[in-house]
This record gives sequence, structure tokens and C-alpha cells, in this order.
Amino acid sequence: MKFNAEKIYRHSFASDNNSGVHPYIMQALFGANSGHVIAYGDDPFTLEAKNIFAGHFGDDVRVYFVMSGTGANTSALYSITRPYNSIICAETAHINVDECNAPGKFSGCRITDIPTEDGKLNVEMIKACIKGRGDVHNSQPGVISITQPTELGTLYSADEIRQICDFAHDNKMLVHMDGARISNAAFALDMPFKEFTRDAGIDVLSFGGTKNGMMFGEAVVFFRDDIATDFEYFQKQSTQLISKMRYISVQFSAFLKNDLWKINAGNANKMAELLADKVSKIEGISIAYPRHTNAVFVYLPKEIISKVIDDFPFYIADDENGIVRWMCSFDTTEEDIRDLLSCIRSQMNK
Amino acid sequence: MKFNAEKIYRHSFASDNNSGVHPYIMQALFGANSGHVIAYGDDPFTLEAKNIFAGHFGDDVRVYFVMSGTGANTSALYSITRPYNSIICAETAHINVDECNAPGKFSGCRITDIPTEDGKLNVEMIKACIKGRGDVHNSQPGVISITQPTELGTLYSADEIRQICDFAHDNKMLVHMDGARISNAAFALDMPFKEFTRDAGIDVLSFGGTKNGMMFGEAVVFFRDDIATDFEYFQKQSTQLISKMRYISVQFSAFLKNDLWKINAGNANKMAELLADKVSKIEGISIAYPRHTNAVFVYLPKEIISKVIDDFPFYIADDENGIVRWMCSFDTTEEDIRDLLSCIRSQMNK
Amino acid sequence: MKFNAEKIYRHSFASDNNSGVHPYIMQALFGANSGHVIAYGDDPFTLEAKNIFAGHFGDDVRVYFVMSGTGANTSALYSITRPYNSIICAETAHINVDECNAPGKFSGCRITDIPTEDGKLNVEMIKACIKGRGDVHNSQPGVISITQPTELGTLYSADEIRQICDFAHDNKMLVHMDGARISNAAFALDMPFKEFTRDAGIDVLSFGGTKNGMMFGEAVVFFRDDIATDFEYFQKQSTQLISKMRYISVQFSAFLKNDLWKINAGNANKMAELLADKVSKIEGISIAYPRHTNAVFVYLPKEIISKVIDDFPFYIADDENGIVRWMCSFDTTEEDIRDLLSCIRSQMNK
Amino acid sequence: MKFNAEKIYRHSFASDNNSGVHPYIMQALFGANSGHVIAYGDDPFTLEAKNIFAGHFGDDVRVYFVMSGTGANTSALYSITRPYNSIICAETAHINVDECNAPGKFSGCRITDIPTEDGKLNVEMIKACIKGRGDVHNSQPGVISITQPTELGTLYSADEIRQICDFAHDNKMLVHMDGARISNAAFALDMPFKEFTRDAGIDVLSFGGTKNGMMFGEAVVFFRDDIATDFEYFQKQSTQLISKMRYISVQFSAFLKNDLWKINAGNANKMAELLADKVSKIEGISIAYPRHTNAVFVYLPKEIISKVIDDFPFYIADDENGIVRWMCSFDTTEEDIRDLLSCIRSQMNK
Repeated sequence: MKFNAEKIYRHSFASDNNSGVHPYIMQALFGANSGHVIAYGDDPFTLEAKNIFAGHFGDDVRVYFVMSGTGANTSALYSITRPYNSIICAETAHINVDECNAPGKFSGCRITDIPTEDGKLNVEMIKACIKGRGDVHNSQPGVISITQPTELGTLYSADEIRQICDFAHDNKMLVHMDGARISNAAFALDMPFKEFTRDAGIDVLSFGGTKNGMMFGEAVVFFRDDIATDFEYFQKQSTQLISKMRYISVQFSAFLKNDLWKINAGNANKMAELLADKVSKIEGISIAYPRHTNAVFVYLPKEIISKVIDDFPFYIADDENGIVRWMCSFDTTEEDIRDLLSCIRSQMNK
Repeated sequence: MKFNAEKIYRHSFASDNNSGVHPYIMQALFGANSGHVIAYGDDPFTLEAKNIFAGHFGDDVRVYFVMSGTGANTSALYSITRPYNSIICAETAHINVDECNAPGKFSGCRITDIPTEDGKLNVEMIKACIKGRGDVHNSQPGVISITQPTELGTLYSADEIRQICDFAHDNKMLVHMDGARISNAAFALDMPFKEFTRDAGIDVLSFGGTKNGMMFGEAVVFFRDDIATDFEYFQKQSTQLISKMRYISVQFSAFLKNDLWKINAGNANKMAELLADKVSKIEGISIAYPRHTNAVFVYLPKEIISKVIDDFPFYIADDENGIVRWMCSFDTTEEDIRDLLSCIRSQMNK
Repeated sequence: MKFNAEKIYRHSFASDNNSGVHPYIMQALFGANSGHVIAYGDDPFTLEAKNIFAGHFGDDVRVYFVMSGTGANTSALYSITRPYNSIICAETAHINVDECNAPGKFSGCRITDIPTEDGKLNVEMIKACIKGRGDVHNSQPGVISITQPTELGTLYSADEIRQICDFAHDNKMLVHMDGARISNAAFALDMPFKEFTRDAGIDVLSFGGTKNGMMFGEAVVFFRDDIATDFEYFQKQSTQLISKMRYISVQFSAFLKNDLWKINAGNANKMAELLADKVSKIEGISIAYPRHTNAVFVYLPKEIISKVIDDFPFYIADDENGIVRWMCSFDTTEEDIRDLLSCIRSQMNK
Repeated sequence: MKFNAEKIYRHSFASDNNSGVHPYIMQALFGANSGHVIAYGDDPFTLEAKNIFAGHFGDDVRVYFVMSGTGANTSALYSITRPYNSIICAETAHINVDECNAPGKFSGCRITDIPTEDGKLNVEMIKACIKGRGDVHNSQPGVISITQPTELGTLYSADEIRQICDFAHDNKMLVHMDGARISNAAFALDMPFKEFTRDAGIDVLSFGGTKNGMMFGEAVVFFRDDIATDFEYFQKQSTQLISKMRYISVQFSAFLKNDLWKINAGNANKMAELLADKVSKIEGISIAYPRHTNAVFVYLPKEIISKVIDDFPFYIADDENGIVRWMCSFDTTEEDIRDLLSCIRSQMNK
């Protein structure tokens, strides 16, 4: 799918990363822009941001700021595996289909993907895919990676996560959570971040910022000291250590202070709810996966797609079945939704 | 060397990446912050920035924006080698000693480093280190990587570069230039970028922005189409593809427009010249490597180091020989130099 | 499954690599054991063996001798891919489940496995799994790897192979054949090797010897010069270049001369046919996959398994469905089959 | 250097791997060739061979049989490092210059090579090359790899090894020994293997067989349980796990029983001593490195080289300085030495 690269859209539903940067984040970047500080994270801005994470996740949490979501997932998985391990994930997982195999290339691990109905794994599915434990011919399961919310916009409950983590730990595996949109999950679950991550047994978390109003920057958050001891080397070797670190750190501070993360995610989720609600009432269109967060997946008649997509970019999630994805973001307005809907309606009625 | 992470310094000489972001760059970031655009570079801001690069390097140049200097070097070298190649560089090269072997890990290549006096390679040195061509037991020389200016602050002339490139091409090798501080080189040489890169035979260039007033962002610039065809996959797999690309692109546009790059580099170089000039007149201190750009390397008595370094952070480049490095940056002022010098002088006189 | 490591069995059905070495091969090893020759393949024994391969596959074929089957597959796939490629194979493929991800680790490629009924791929299945061509976020399909005969003992016809190869080439992919048991395929198809490999469009072949009476040694056979130019470096870097090469070469010469390969494979296939024929007549046992070569897969009641396996080792191919695998080899005798059958019958009747 | 690939030489001095297989080894291969055994090492022949190793090195030693010397070094180093480590070795080390960077590619580690006079490292040299400990930009020293005897034929004393190992362990590094010619070392030192390996502090050993009369096969020997726990996965992933393992195992049993290793190495060393003794008396020829084992390095006038090399293959070790290498092997005879010397003498007198 190639969109018009020459265009600034009023609103794109293609992804929440098509949006810009929240003004408070911009302001924070400005605020950090005086004086010199030591590079690579030995600076007061980074200390502060780490403290704020500690406030959310516990004092002994270990936090590292990286540049991109693929970078967070890749460096985290690279650091907690040995190359004879396998990494188990859903077929739809970002690490499986959207990172050009960076996690596999870096770690040397086999990515074992499991087909799912809604992007979610469960213990039964994981059990069924584990074969050849202790057999040198087989990659040995080392990590289960789940995405929260999933790439299909669905949510794990804290309890579902706990079951997966318990199973993993009972079987000497670790659990990684890809939280590229973790704020949207926290808002939807109405829970503190900690409750469905650390408290549920997650070992390491990719904590996303970019998709929820930051310019760039993600955090790799370890809940166990013993697996984090040498992460910084993996981060550096993964090309994910930025020199002017303060410009990620202050974004995170602004993001986590005054509940900006929640305001932003809340707006995105609510706009998605509105969109899902309205669009499902249009005859000929139906919801494909339950709408839990800021993604809306619908069956859209193929002849309509091409007529809407130019003005309101979005991705076709499943070409065969005619499922499209609309993402709402921190800056989606009711007007944006109205305009999209009215465009669709006018096409449907032709 | 651990500095004080809790401190914002008025000025640090540790590295030009201890500085902040030039106001024009900040302004450009603001200017790009409205509306939605397609992610990963399919946006008008990126198109514009690429056009500006084309203005500097030729219409058929291929430019890709990545996040960090290590990322630029690593993804570039990864993409133009096969794992049985070797990459030849100076012992002091950033790719050799400052990237935690990211280029070696990604590419699978042997890094063959050559000791030098001043950070510069020449054809004789390269010839002497090439052994076992055509012998399957030996890594096959594939790329020569030079740094301009070098990590010791010295410069290659355009002619010296041409000689290396000619030798490389005659021997079926490519030449990569690590231009993390390329603006400082261009200013010092008083040449357009193209004259000592593309016109001298360079095949692929890491073009730096961060160290000269940008927030983050480097460019990988290919001067040959045939080696660039699949770079984007290497960029993605190297975790160096940012989603909100416009925020790198507009920095580069601002950086290259109105000669901001030259103003910034010019200031850094001139402040270094001033510092070198003044400090070399202090008895007991002497210049270690010729001062060509914005780095000043001096022999500093060891007992002085610890007394100066707390207020004016800098790196010890060579512990054994007592050589320290001071970097000047786009925002170094004469007052900064004066203060450093007066601190040194007062310590030397004790 | 752990067998008795202290035991020499009269016959094991666990794998054809449980057998020893054919006496003619042993004799050839002896015959090569005088005088000195240059190491790593620059010797007359290797020249002769390569000539014999040329007789089978064409004068311009390029042949390299490696040590193991995993080594052949891994070095071949490593050499013909770039790390952003994906390698498409059946879920049951040896490269997918039996090589501890060596092909993925070496090449950096994604292994995209496709579930099958009988171990065989076809164009429809391959088409359906190809997504995101030209999208930098997705690994780009580079190679289709098929196994002939498959790990389930089934066979592709020459025409089925041709269809896959045509599709691959039309879509800028290469085709690799894992021919660990290629002799068994050739015998069953009653075709020269070339007819269902090179003539059918295969680009590179892992040609197996170990499982059909050799001591060790496999060949990587390229049918296109342009993809073989630098294979020797990949072979060396893959640790698959043996110093005393003559001891692989003379095995292959003996193997291919006087139709030893055919005699051996013929015996294995015929014994499997006999076994399949007889065992399927026992009430309560049925054939799981069509018996094409030297593997017999049957549904065996679980309570029987443990009573037979100690004397006649075999693998449980599918624990859930109670499918076991018996492999026949070059030295399986009718008596071996009779003994196995009588053991089974006596257990079934209890 | 390309030799005549069509020729069987009576004797080649190019390498000890140009020789054939000792008759006792051949006999052992025959002796193992009846019945079926479980593949991949679960067989009585392998149990026996491991017991014999235990007799030499201690009951708790862990031994794995691999296919080649490069395979032994690579899989061993791969298994005991993390990719951010560096592996320190002499510039002349086989892992540095003769393995097409397999250890670097597999492990992701930086290979840090140190120039030496005679192929031997010492603590001072190692200390001087260690920089940036604890600095994320630098590869962290993880392993010191020494070769015994060195690639220049020289020997470490047990005490010299102990010093290196003590330093390594004090600095949280491991020590690997490349013992491709370890029998030649043991004979020259007149010591049990254990005395200059395990007892001197070595952590893991590549124990060579091929160069001393075996057909193929090396052992990776671990002296610490904690670093060996998952080696088998690295072995498999490195493509170094042979299926018909018994044919390596019985070679090692024959090699270690009845002192065959010592008889073979003794002959090679003594022939080298004879050669060194005689050749050094020829005017115009002098010894380049002390002759400790079965390698003789001499300064040979360049015009002589081409006249001798066709009939008595050897390698030019140092083209610039005119140093050539002659290797003696288990089957070198006094007559071979006489013939070589008389050829040289006749050329020198022309």
C-alpha cells in the first residue's frame, strides 16, 4: 500500500504514528535544551525519567531508553536469550511480521509463531507448540512474547497474562511484553501499568511512547535484576543507544507526569469506540475483532476501500477477507470520525 | 571515566554531543508538528530533505535517514558486505573501538584495524595488511572505512581520499566514509561536501548531524545505485528505521539550508583553534595531534587532569601517555575557552 | 526419546543413520590412504569425485563436499540469501525443526514454515504465505526449500518440482532441495538424479550420502554459476570445510560408481515396502502417510510402542496421534523385518 | 599458493593434514563397522571414548566430539561468550587468520589480536590491550584464546599458561586453548595432557586429532561444568554434530589407547628436529622461530623457494621476510627429510 508521500493529511487512520507530537512533549524538549550534559544517559534528565518509571513500577526496576519500538523489542529479546532458544509469539506479533526479522537476526533464535483468532496466546496454544525439549536438534523455548494490546487491538486481562507467565516460569521460560501501545491498554483496563505487567509476572517490557504522542523513544523495562545486568551492552551493540539521551528522557517525564499518557490514550480509545459504534451501524459493514483499545478492524466492501483510502489513509489488514484497520490517536477528533464516516456512507450509498 | 550525572554543565568539552540542539533545529521541529503524514519516510518533509541532499551531492544520490551514528555506520557496512569480507579501518576508528562491535556482529565481517600515527590510513598501510586474497581461510577485503575528520581530529585531503578510493576500486573494494563530523571537515577544507566524498571516489557516506547541533539523526548517503538497492531492508533490520521520520528530515533540512551546518561547524572549529593556540602557550602543555577541526588533543600533566575535569568534563584519550581530548561544539563560546584556560593555568601554577 | 546408549543393535529402525558404512565405501577409504595430498580439496581424489558428479548433473555443475546434512543445508542457504530474505519450507522440514535453527542463525533469514498434510509444498500454499513483498517491514521471500523425499517419506514428482521452481523463478526466488535421501527418491522415481533436480529447475541441491551407506559427507551442488561464485567462503565460515577432503571424495566416488547408491537405496526402499505391506495387514495398525521411499509411518497403538521400542528402536513421529516412524536402510534384511513384525504381532495379540 | 591438485605426493611438508590416516585408526574404523547404534553419540563407542578422555583429564570432564578444528574452536568460543565480549588472541592465531572469521561471525564477538614475536601471549601484552572495561561502547574482554603449540611451532610452559589463566580468572575472563596439535606439545613438554591444560587453569580445550593421524575429528573438552551445560545446542547449531558419531569416537579411542598419539607426535617432532638441525647447517639458511614441536620455520632465499616447492610442497609463512614453514607429520621418514635436504642443497649450490 503506497500512500501519497507529498501530502500532509488533516488526519490519517493508517497508524497512530502518523500523528505528530503532543505539545506538552514539544514543550519538554524545549525545556531540556539549555546547558551541556554528559551523553548516553548520564544526565539529570535521564535520572529523573528513571525515577518516574520507578514510581510506576517499583524502586528496583531497571529502565533503559531506546529509540524505536523495533529497537526495544529486538534489544530486549536479544539480551535475554541464547541463540539456541526459540521465541514464542502470536502469528500476528509485530516481532514476527513487522520487524524484517530483526529479533531473529540479532538473537539467532527461532521465532515460533502461533496462529490465533484474535492476536492472543493462551497456555494451551503454547503447550501445543512446544516440542523437543532437551533435544539438541530443536530450538529450546526460551521466551514467550505477548503484545498488549495485541496487533489486532484486543486485550489480555491481568489474569490471562498471569497464567501465561506462571506457565512460562514453571517451564524455565521468560515472558516479554511488547507494549508499543501499553498506555491504550492501561486506560482500557483502568489499571496501573504495574498491575498487568510486573504484578502479573512479566519479566521484561517494551514500553512505548511514540505511538501515543511522543516524537520518538521507547523504554525497555526489566523487572528482574539478574536478566538486566548486561543489557546496556546489548543496547549499544543493537545501535539503540542515543547520544543526546536527554531528549528521550524528558519526553518520557512529560509523558508520565500529569497523566499525559492517560489523556492521550484515553482520547484515542474513546475515538475508536465512537468510530466502532457508528460504523457498525452502517449496513454492509461489520466489526472484525472486538474493539478494546484504539484500533478498529472492520469488514469493508472491497469496492469502497479504494474510494475512501485516498483521503483517509488506512491499512488493509487482511486482503483476502476484506478486513481494514483504522487507528485512532491522541489527536483524533470527533470531527475526524464524522468526516470519515460521512465519506464511507456516501460511498456505500452509491 | 564517570562524570557527574546529576549536573547540567555550562559547558562540557567531553564531546560535541554533550551540547544541546541549535535553536533553528528546534524551530524546524516545531514547524513540522502539524497534521498527519505517512510514517517511515513517505512524507513531504522527507522528500524535501532528500532533495536538499541531492542539491549537495547530485540528483542521483540515494539518501536514507537513520537515528544514530553507530546506526549509520553499522547499517551501511552491513548492507554492502557479505560475511566473509573484512572491513579495513584505522585502529582508532569509531567502528573499531566505540560501537561494541556492532558492525562486526551485524555484518559477520572481520574488522581489520591498522595502527596509525594520526588516525589516517594510506594506501601503503592498506596494502601491507591485505593477505590471503582468494584463500578461503581468510576473510576477503571488502570495504575500506575511513573517518573524516578522523577520531583524532585530523583531516584527509581530497587527494588522499582519492588515492585510497582508487586503490580500493582497483582491488574490488568499496570505500565507506564515517562522516559523523563531516561539517567540521568541510569547513576546515573549505570545500563543498561533494568534493571530498563523491568526487573523490567514496561509495557510501555516514553523514552526521547530531554532533553539530541536531537533536538526533544521521544520513546514509549512497553514491552508487547498485549498492543501495536493498538498503532499506538492512536499515529496517538494523532497527534504524524511525516511524515519525519527519522529525529527522526537518532537522536535516534546517541544518543544510542557510548554511547552518557551516555556521555551527565553523564556530566549533574556530573555538578549537583558539583553544589550541592558547593552551599550547602554557608551559608544560603541548599539542598531541595537529588541530584540524574541532578536537584539541594535548599532553596534559596527570596531576592537573583530576583538578580540571570536574568543572570542565573531557576524556582522557590516552591514559598511558597523558593525552586528553577537548571537543568544541557549535555553541562553544570564547568565554568557555577562557574559563577552561584560566582553570588550567591556575592549577599549573600551584 | 532416549534409547540405550550402551547397546549395539542388530538393527535399529530409528533412522537410516543408525546403520554403519557400506563395505565398498570402507574399501574406498582404505584405497585412498597412501601418500600425501594437498588439503581442503586440491587433490586428485576430489577432482575425480567432482567429475563423477559432473557426469550425473552436467559439466558445468559446481560441487562442494561438506561434512553433514545440516552443514550442507545451512551453508547452501547461507550463501544464496541476504539476511532480509525469508526461506519458505514445509513445517516438517529438517531445516525448520531439526537443525536447532542453524539456517536461521547463519543466514539471518526468517524461516517461514507452512503446514502440510504430507510434507509437500505446492504453489498454492506458497502463494498464500507470501505477504508484504516490497514492504521493508517484512522479510522478503528469497528461497523455497523443499525436501526430496520429504521428512514424511513422500515424493514430489518431477513435474511438481518444476511447478514450484517456475513459480519461484517468476517471482525472483531460488529453489533449494534438501536431498539428504535423494538416492531413495531417485530409485523410487526410477529417474536419473538430474531429471528431478536440475532439469526441473532446482538451483542448489544438498546431496546426501551419510544416510545411504557413507560414513559422513554430503555435497552441495549448484546448477547456476552465478550463485556459486563465493560459496567456498561460506563453506569455510560455516565450519564445513574438512582438511583431509579426500576421505569424503572417495566415498562419493565409490557411492556413485557401479550404482552403489542405487543398490543401497533400492534395498532400503524395498524393505520399507515389504514392511509397510506386511504391517498394514495387522489388525489395529494402519499406514499414516503413503509409503514412497524408505520410511514407513504407521498408527501404532500406544500400549504397543513401549513394548517394541527397546529391541527395535524407532521414533514417535507424532505423539498426539500415535504415529511412529520406521526407517529402513541399505543393510536392512528381510529377517530384520520379520523379527520386527513378529515382535509387534506377539504384542498385539496379548 | 596453489599446488598441483592432480598429484599424490610421496611427502608434503605443507601441513600435517596432507598426510593420510594412521593404520591403527583405519583398523579402529573397521572395527566399529558392524551393527546399528543410536546416532549423534548415544552409542557405546562414544561412551568408551569419553571414558578414555576422563582417564586423561579427570572424571568430571565434559567431552564433545566435533568434525573439524575450525568447528571445535568456533563452537567452543561461541558457547562461552556473549556477543558483546571480545576474544583476545595472538595475531597469528588460527582463529584470527585461518577461519574466515567463523568465530567472530558465530559469536558476534570482537576478535582482538595482539602482535607477538613468536606466537605467544603473556600477561603484560594482554593487560596492555584491555581498554574500556565497563564502558558500553567497548567490547568487554571475555575470553583469552591461546594456541598450544602456537601456529609458529613454539610452546608455552605450563607455568606460562598458568600465569595467563590466573590473570584471566582474576579479571573474570575464561581461557580457551586451541590444541589442534596438542599431542605434539605434550610430547615436547614430556607432560600428561592434563598438566598443561586443566591443571594450569585452562577452561575449555580444542583437542585435535586430524593433524596427528586421524581421518577427521576433534574434541571440545570442558574443565568446568557450569560453562558446558548447553554446549550441545551450540554444537548442533554450529553444524558440528555428526550423525554417525561412532566413527569419530573410535578414532579417538584408538588414538589415545596404547599411546598412539605419543608415537605419532613423537615421530613428527623428531623428524622436525632432524630437519631443523640439518637445514640450519646449510649456508644461507637460518631458523626463524625456535623449533619446539613439528614445525620448522626457516629463512629461505626466495630464488630457491620456487625450485623446491613443486616436489616438496610447503607454505610461505612470511612472504616479505622470506620465511617458509615445513611441517612434519606422523608418517614423515628420515628419507623424506634427506630428500628435501638434498633438493635444497642442490639448488643452493647452483
